[in-house]
Amino acid sequence: MRDVAIIGVGTTKFGELWDASFRDLGIEAGFKAMNDANLTGSEVDGMFIGNMSSGRFINQDHIGALIADYAGMASRNVPAMRIEAAGASGGMAFRQAVMAVASGMNNIVVVGGAEKMTDVSDEATNSILDSATDQQWEATMGATFASLNAMIARRCIYEKIATREEIASMAVNSHAHGALNPDAQFRKAITLDTVLRSSIVADPLTVFDCAPISDGAAAVVLCPLDIAKKYSDRPVKVAASAQASDTLALFQRKDITTFAATSAAARTAYSLAKIEAKDISVAEVHDHFTIEGILALQDLGLFERGKAGKAVMDGQAAIGGKVAVNTSGGLKARGHPIGATGVAQIVEITKQLRGTADKRQVANARYGLTQNVGGTGSAVVVNILEAI
Amino acid sequence: MRDVAIIGVGTTKFGELWDASFRDLGIEAGFKAMNDANLTGSEVDGMFIGNMSSGRFINQDHIGALIADYAGMASRNVPAMRIEAAGASGGMAFRQAVMAVASGMNNIVVVGGAEKMTDVSDEATNSILDSATDQQWEATMGATFASLNAMIARRCIYEKIATREEIASMAVNSHAHGALNPDAQFRKAITLDTVLRSSIVADPLTVFDCAPISDGAAAVVLCPLDIAKKYSDRPVKVAASAQASDTLALFQRKDITTFAATSAAARTAYSLAKIEAKDISVAEVHDHFTIEGILALQDLGLFERGKAGKAVMDGQAAIGGKVAVNTSGGLKARGHPIGATGVAQIVEITKQLRGTADKRQVANARYGLTQNVGGTGSAVVVNILEAI
Repeated sequence: MRDVAIIGVGTTKFGELWDASFRDLGIEAGFKAMNDANLTGSEVDGMFIGNMSSGRFINQDHIGALIADYAGMASRNVPAMRIEAAGASGGMAFRQAVMAVASGMNNIVVVGGAEKMTDVSDEATNSILDSATDQQWEATMGATFASLNAMIARRCIYEKIATREEIASMAVNSHAHGALNPDAQFRKAITLDTVLRSSIVADPLTVFDCAPISDGAAAVVLCPLDIAKKYSDRPVKVAASAQASDTLALFQRKDITTFAATSAAARTAYSLAKIEAKDISVAEVHDHFTIEGILALQDLGLFERGKAGKAVMDGQAAIGGKVAVNTSGGLKARGHPIGATGVAQIVEITKQLRGTADKRQVANARYGLTQNVGGTGSAVVVNILEAI
Repeated sequence: MRDVAIIGVGTTKFGELWDASFRDLGIEAGFKAMNDANLTGSEVDGMFIGNMSSGRFINQDHIGALIADYAGMASRNVPAMRIEAAGASGGMAFRQAVMAVASGMNNIVVVGGAEKMTDVSDEATNSILDSATDQQWEATMGATFASLNAMIARRCIYEKIATREEIASMAVNSHAHGALNPDAQFRKAITLDTVLRSSIVADPLTVFDCAPISDGAAAVVLCPLDIAKKYSDRPVKVAASAQASDTLALFQRKDITTFAATSAAARTAYSLAKIEAKDISVAEVHDHFTIEGILALQDLGLFERGKAGKAVMDGQAAIGGKVAVNTSGGLKARGHPIGATGVAQIVEITKQLRGTADKRQVANARYGLTQNVGGTGSAVVVNILEAI
C-alpha cells in the first residue's frame, strides 16, 4: 500500500443556508479544496461523496453522479460514488478515498461530504434522523436519537462516570472554540448556566446539549504522499484510517457507558500509526450530543474513564489544554450537516497540522485525530493525521 | 495491488416477497454466500452493501450497520458501509470490496446488494426511482425513467440503430433465459408479439420493455487470489473492475444513442484484464429497459453499433450464440431489486465460469462481464471475471 497525503481542504459556511442548494454547497467546498491543492480539476481521477439522506432531504439520490457532473468531471467520465453510514458518512467516504489512493486504483481523489437539511419540516427531519437508529426495534417504539443519548447520559451520571455539569461543559468547550471559527454555525461562547437552564429535549439533555440541524459541505483532496509536494507546500500525511461496527440498537449492548466501536477503531488506528493516545495534540470528536463527546474522549483513551468530564470542565480540552478538542466548534457549534461532518473534521485537523488554524491554532501539534460516529455508536471511523 | 478472487456467491429468490423483510433478505443472501465459501463468518473482516433507497423504501438508513449487526458481525466490530449509486449501487459496492482486498486493507470481504421495493405504493416507488434522474432539471419537469428511455428508443429507431422489433427482442431473449433460472421473478418465455402488443408505458416502450419492481438480495465473498483455493474448489478471478461517469441529465448529452460511460468503463476494464471484447463469452448487462440492453451490447463492443438489435433478434445473444447475454434472465426477467442487481450479475457470471449454471450453462466460457448502470447512463461499472 502507498502512503497517502492531504493536499487541499475546503468548506462552506455551516448553518441554515436558505439561499444555497445542495449542489451549490457541494461544488463550493470541492472547488475550494481543489484551489487549495493548486488543481484545475483535470488531474482528478476519482470522487467519493459522504451523504446520509439526500433522497429524503432533497428528493435526489445518485448524488455521486450529480456532484461529478456539476463539478465538470462527467466530460472526463471521472468515477464518483456516494457512501452512507448515517453520521459517519463523511469519515467513511474519506476512508474509501484513502483506500482508493493507497491501493493504486486512483491518484488524485476528491472526497466531499454534504447535507442540505433545512429544506424540509422539523417533523420530516426527525423522521430522517431516526432512520439511523434501528427502525424496527427503536424508532417505531418511540425512541429518538435524543432520548437514546439521554439514557446514556442518565446511566453515566448514575455510575459516576460524569456529573451533569461535566457533561454540559462539553458544549461550553465547543462553543468557546466555535466563537473563533468564521465558518461555524454558532460563533458565540456560552456558560454552563446556558446549557443547564435551556429547554429540556430529553431529560437530562437540554437544547444546548444537542448539535443543531445544519446545511453545509466540506471537501479534501488526496494523493500519494510521494508526489504531494508537487501540489502543496504543506501536505499532511494520513497516518491511519480505521473503522468498526457495533449493534445498531442500543438495548443490545452490555454496557451503554462506552462505545466499543470507538475503542476498537482507535486501537487499530493507533497501531497503524504506530503511536499512542498520548501523542495526539488535537482531536475532533463526534459531539452530536454532549454525552457522546465525553464518551469519545474516554473511549479514544485521550482521558481516563471517569475523568474526561472533569478534564473538560477544568479546561483540559480547550486550546492550550492537554488535548485541544473540537477546535472547529465541534458538531455542537460548528454545526452538523450530517454527511459533511466527518470531512469537516479532517479539514480542521489538516489546518491545525499545517499551522493555518488562525485564532484556533494549537501550538506544536504533530498528530491529530478525528472520530466520526454513525447511529448511537453503531459505526465509528477514526482517522489519524500527521504533520510532515 | 493484490489479485482478488470470488470464493462464494448467494442470492434470494427475486420477486414480490411479501413475507420477507429487508433484513431477512440481506441475511439470507449473505449466509448463502458464506456457506458457499465454507466460512463460519469469523473470518470476515469487512462488509460493503449496495442499496439505493432503503431510507425511503423501508424508512431505514444506516443499513451497513444493520446488516453487520444482524449477520452477527457487530460483536467483532467488523466494518460495514453502504454504497449508493442508484441502479449501479451493487456493482459499485463490489468494486469497493475489490479495492479493499486489492489494497491489503481487508482479507475476507462480503459484498451484499439488497432492495425491498414492494412495501410502498406505486406512486412512492415512482418518486423514489425518479430521484436517480436529475431531480431539478428532469423529474420536476415530468420526465420519468421510462420516458427518458423512450426518447432514447425513439432516437435509435430514427437513426436506424435498431428497429422497434429488434429492441423488443431484448426482452424475448431475457425471458427465454429467465425461464431456466429458478430464482428469477418471471420464469416464462415470451414472444415478440407479447412485447409489442402489451400496454404502452412510454411510447414506444411497453410493459414488457421495462424491468419489474422487485424485492431481493445477492451476496458474494472475496479474498486474495493466492489463498482462494483454501476456501473454494472453483474460485473465480476478478480480472478487472472499472467505473465511469456521465452527465446526470440526459439532455446534456451530445448523443443519446450511446452511453459514453459504458464505453469508457469497458475500455478501462478490457485494458486492465488485457483482453478484447471478442474474448467475452457471457455477459450480464443492465436491461432496465430493453433499449438500455441494446445500447449496452454496442457500447461494450460485444456487437457492432447498428447491428446489436439484429444480432439479438437472430439469437446471437442467446445461450449458444456469439455471446450469451443475461443468462440469469437479466433485469427484465430475473427482476431488478435495485441495489441487488449489480451483485446478482456477479453471482450469475461466477456460476457460469465455475460451470455450475445448470440449464443455463454456457460452454467453455473463460471470460464473463457485468455492466451495471446508475441513472440513464450517468454512472456505469464494468467488471470482468475470469475462470481459473
